[in-house]
Amino acid sequence: MITFDTRPDRYKHWKLTFDGPLATLSMDVREDAGLSPDYKLKLNSYDLGVDIELADALQRIRFEHPEVHAVVITSLKERIFCAGANIMMLRGSSHGAKVNFCKYTNETRLAIEDASAHSGLKFLAALNGICAGGGYELALACDEILLVDDGNSAVSLPEAPLLGVLPGTGGLTRVVDKRHVRRDLADFFSTLVEGVKGKRAVEWKLVDAAYPTSKFKEAVAKRARELAAMSHRPASGPGITLNPLNPTVTDGALTYSAVTLTINRDKRTADLTVHAPSGQQPATPDDILKAGDQFWPLRAFRELDDALLRLRINEPEIGTVVIRTDGDRDAVLAIDRTLAAHRSHWLVGEIVAFMRRTLKRLDLTARSFFAFIEPGSAFAGSLFELALAADRSYMFHDDAEENVIALSPMNAGPLTMSNGLTRLETRFLDEKGKVQELLAHDGPFNAGEAEDAGLVTFAPDEIDWDDEIRLAVEARAAFSPDAMTGLEANLRFPGPETMETKIFGRLTAWQNWIFQRPNAVGDKGALKVYGQQGRPEFDWKRT
Amino acid sequence: MITFDTRPDRYKHWKLTFDGPLATLSMDVREDAGLSPDYKLKLNSYDLGVDIELADALQRIRFEHPEVHAVVITSLKERIFCAGANIMMLRGSSHGAKVNFCKYTNETRLAIEDASAHSGLKFLAALNGICAGGGYELALACDEILLVDDGNSAVSLPEAPLLGVLPGTGGLTRVVDKRHVRRDLADFFSTLVEGVKGKRAVEWKLVDAAYPTSKFKEAVAKRARELAAMSHRPASGPGITLNPLNPTVTDGALTYSAVTLTINRDKRTADLTVHAPSGQQPATPDDILKAGDQFWPLRAFRELDDALLRLRINEPEIGTVVIRTDGDRDAVLAIDRTLAAHRSHWLVGEIVAFMRRTLKRLDLTARSFFAFIEPGSAFAGSLFELALAADRSYMFHDDAEENVIALSPMNAGPLTMSNGLTRLETRFLDEKGKVQELLAHDGPFNAGEAEDAGLVTFAPDEIDWDDEIRLAVEARAAFSPDAMTGLEANLRFPGPETMETKIFGRLTAWQNWIFQRPNAVGDKGALKVYGQQGRPEFDWKRT
Repeated sequence: MITFDTRPDRYKHWKLTFDGPLATLSMDVREDAGLSPDYKLKLNSYDLGVDIELADALQRIRFEHPEVHAVVITSLKERIFCAGANIMMLRGSSHGAKVNFCKYTNETRLAIEDASAHSGLKFLAALNGICAGGGYELALACDEILLVDDGNSAVSLPEAPLLGVLPGTGGLTRVVDKRHVRRDLADFFSTLVEGVKGKRAVEWKLVDAAYPTSKFKEAVAKRARELAAMSHRPASGPGITLNPLNPTVTDGALTYSAVTLTINRDKRTADLTVHAPSGQQPATPDDILKAGDQFWPLRAFRELDDALLRLRINEPEIGTVVIRTDGDRDAVLAIDRTLAAHRSHWLVGEIVAFMRRTLKRLDLTARSFFAFIEPGSAFAGSLFELALAADRSYMFHDDAEENVIALSPMNAGPLTMSNGLTRLETRFLDEKGKVQELLAHDGPFNAGEAEDAGLVTFAPDEIDWDDEIRLAVEARAAFSPDAMTGLEANLRFPGPETMETKIFGRLTAWQNWIFQRPNAVGDKGALKVYGQQGRPEFDWKRT
Repeated sequence: MITFDTRPDRYKHWKLTFDGPLATLSMDVREDAGLSPDYKLKLNSYDLGVDIELADALQRIRFEHPEVHAVVITSLKERIFCAGANIMMLRGSSHGAKVNFCKYTNETRLAIEDASAHSGLKFLAALNGICAGGGYELALACDEILLVDDGNSAVSLPEAPLLGVLPGTGGLTRVVDKRHVRRDLADFFSTLVEGVKGKRAVEWKLVDAAYPTSKFKEAVAKRARELAAMSHRPASGPGITLNPLNPTVTDGALTYSAVTLTINRDKRTADLTVHAPSGQQPATPDDILKAGDQFWPLRAFRELDDALLRLRINEPEIGTVVIRTDGDRDAVLAIDRTLAAHRSHWLVGEIVAFMRRTLKRLDLTARSFFAFIEPGSAFAGSLFELALAADRSYMFHDDAEENVIALSPMNAGPLTMSNGLTRLETRFLDEKGKVQELLAHDGPFNAGEAEDAGLVTFAPDEIDWDDEIRLAVEARAAFSPDAMTGLEANLRFPGPETMETKIFGRLTAWQNWIFQRPNAVGDKGALKVYGQQGRPEFDWKRT
C-alpha cells in the first residue's frame, strides 16, 4: 500500500537545505530506491515516490519555514538535472497507475505555482544539466528557468518522438500558455529528441537565461536573491511543525482524528465522514500558531487530503463515495469567521490555501461523490464546500426543520476551484445576483429552503429518504466507471477555463487517450519497445 | 468513398420547406437509406449521411435564401423528434470512424450557432416527441427549445447509463455552459435513461418551454415568427446558388478548379495546393452576387472544405499534409480588400463566415500540416491564414528576395479561430503590440523579414531547402500518429478557451478515451452489448 506521509530526514531522493530566505531543493534520485524493484531510477528519473517527497518538501517550506522567500530547484547529479518520469516504470504500470501518477505530478507542479501566486514564494529552476521530459515540466512550473550553457545541456520534451505519448505533466500547455513560446516553435521543439540548448532556448523563450558553466552558480544565487526580495512572506519564523497523521488503518477503514473513510468493497462504495471540531477554538493568529497542525481546519483538511490520495491510489474499484459531516456546525462557522478575518496572516493564509488545494483534489478525483446531509450533520461554511463539490447532494427533509446547512465567508471567495470561480459561482453560472443573495442570507437554511435556493440537489422526506439514497448509490455504482469519469470531468468544470483546467481537461484527456492506444502500449507500441531491440510498429490511421 | 455534395432534391432524410421568413427543416429519416446496409436508421436515428444533408441544408439557407430569418428544426415522425446517433452504426464503426463522425456532427451543430451569432439566423428546436441523445444535442445547438408536453415526450442524454459512453456532440458542455443547467441537476439528468419531461424540463432549464399537444404547433409558429423578427437578414432575396463542385477524382488526386489534393500513399503524405485567382475580380456586392458561387473566395474555400472532409473520412493513413499556394498574390489581396470593405453586405458576410469555418475545420483536422512557401506562391492575406494554421511553415529564402508573403485586413479580425482569437493573436499570445505592428507593415515580407518577424517558422536558403523540407516531412510522417494528434490538439489552441474549444478539447478528448476502453467497445462492453442478450461486464477500476 502506497502512503503519502514522509519528512525530510526520510527523503531518499531530495535534499532540502536552508540559507536564510533561500531554500534549495536538490534532486538526487537513488537508483535503487524506487517504489518497485522492477526498475532503476537512473539519471534522476522519477516515480511516484520521488514526487511524494517533492510534494512534502513544498508543504513544509510553506508551513514550517515562513522565513523562506524563494526556492531553488536543482540537482546534485553532475551534468544532469532530471531525465523525467522513469520509462521502465511507465512501461510496467497499468493504465490507471499511469493516469494517477500523472494526475499527482500535475497537482504537485500546480502546488508550486499556487505557492508562487498565493504565498509569494518564488521558484527558480537551476538546470545544471540535461533536462528532459518531466524534468523540463518541473522547470516549467517554476517562475523562472536558468540553464547552464555548456554545449551539452538542453531542455527537451522527447515524449512524442521517442515514446509515442505526450508530455503528461502540463508541458505542452505551459510551453505555449505560460511561457508563450510560439506555437510553431513549440511544435518543432516537442518533436526534437535532443531538445534545444543555450542561446536558442532563450530566444524561443523555453528558458529565461543561459549561462556558461563558470558563471552559472553565481547567476543562480544572484537571481534567487532577487526573487526572494520580491516576496511578501514574513522576515522570520517560527513556523509550525507538520506532524505525521498516523491514521488507524484496517482492511476496511482509514480512521483519522477528524476524518473517517470506510470502504464497502462488495458495493464498490465508500463512506467519507468529516467530523466538526468541538469546544472553544483558537480565534487569533497567535493562538493558531500555538495550536499548530492541531488547529482543526488544517488537521481535518490534511486528513481529508491524505484519505483522498490513498483512495485514489490504493482503492481503484471504489467508484462512489458518500460524503457526510457530523458535529458542531457552529464551531465550523466560528472557525470560518476567524480564517476570513485573519487571512492576511501568513499561517492563516497557508491554511486557507491548503483547504483550497484539498478541495481541488476532490474536484479532480475520478470517483462519484454524493453528499448526504442528515440530522446531526455539520455542512456549514467550509464544510458545505464538500456538498458543493459533490456531484449531487441529498438533504433529509425533516418535519422538525432541524436539519440545516449554512454558508459563511469561506463560501464567498477563498476556496476557488481550478476554473477560478468559487463553487457557488460555478453552481449558479448565470446568476451572479443569486450568489450574492444567498451569501447575504441570515442564518441557516432548512431542507425546504436549501432545495428552493438550489443549494442541494434533492430533499426527500422521511418516507422517501431511505429508498431514494439507497437507489441513487446503487444506480451510480452500476454505471460504466469510464463513462462516469468522463461525465464528471465535463460537468464539474462549467464556466471559464484556466491553464489549470486546460492541463486537467484538454491535455490530460488526450494523454489518457494515447495511453490506451496500441501505438503506445501495444506489444509493438512505442512505450513498450523503447530501449529494447527493434522499432515500434504503428497503425498509421490518424484519428 | 463518402462524398459530401448533395442538394435538397436528393435529400433522403430531411424536408426543407420555406414560408416567407421561416424555413422548416423536418427530420424524416429513411430507415433503409443509411450509408451502410448493416443497420436500420430506426426512430429518426442518424448516421453521417443524415448529418451531411443537415449541413448542406444549413449552407443553402444561408447562401440561397437570405430572406429566411428563422429556422424551425422538427420531425415528421409521430411522437418522435430524434433518437440520436444510430447505435448499431456506432457499434459497427472503427474507432477512427466514430471519432470522425462525432467531429463532423460537432462542426454541424457549431455551424448552427455560427449562423445564429453571425448571420442573425435564429433556430428553434420544436421537439414534437421523444428527443434522446444526439437528438437533444441537436436541439441544444438551437437558440431555443420548445417541447411538447404530452405525458410521454422527454429530453434525455442516455449515453452514459445505457451505452457507457458520453454524449459525443457537445451535450454535456452545452447543458452546463450554454443553458446553465445546474451542474448537479445536469449530473442527475445525464444518468437518467428516461430523461426529463414537461414542467421539470423547463424548471431545470433543459428546454425553454413546454406546451400541451393541442397548443404546440401554434406556440412553435408564434415563437418562430418572433425569432424571425429579431433577425437583421435582408427582407428579400435573391440569394446565390451553390452548384456542385464536381472535382476530378482519381486514385491519387482530387482536382478542383482552385484546389488540388495529391495523395502519396507510400509516404503517407499529401500535397494540398490552393490556386489564387487571376485577372479582374468582382469588387462590389452587385458583382459578387452576379459571380455567385464562382466568386473565387467562395469557390476556393468550398473546394478546400470538401477536400479536407474527403481527406479526413476517406484517407485515414495520410498523416502529413504539405500546403502550398500559387498564382497571383495581388489578386488575393484585392479580393481581401473587397471582402473587408463590404463585410456588412449579407453575401460578403456569408462568404467571410464560410472562409472562417473552413479554416476552423483545418485547425480541427487531425493531420499534421506544414506550409511550404516557395517562389511563385500566393501566401497573402486570407491565403496566408493557411500558413498560420499550419503546425509549421518553411519559407524559401531566395537571394533575389522575390519570394514574399503579405498580410491584409483579413488577417486582422474576420477569420477568428475556435478560441475567439485571430491566428496572428494566437501566434503572438503575449505580444498585442506586435500584432498591430505587423498588420501596419507596408507591403510584403521577404523571407528574411518574415522569419525575423516570426511570421514563418524557418527560412532555409537554397543550399539547405531541399534537404530540410524533405527531412521535416519524413520525420513527421514517421512519428506515432496518435502522439501527433494529441500534440496538435494541444499546441494549436493556446490562449483562451470557449464553449467551442471546450467541446473539441475537453469533451471530445474524454469521449475518444472512452471510445477506446473495453468497458465501451470490448466484447462485453456497454456499446457492444446494448440491445442484445445479456448485460455489459465492466472492469470496475476508476481512472
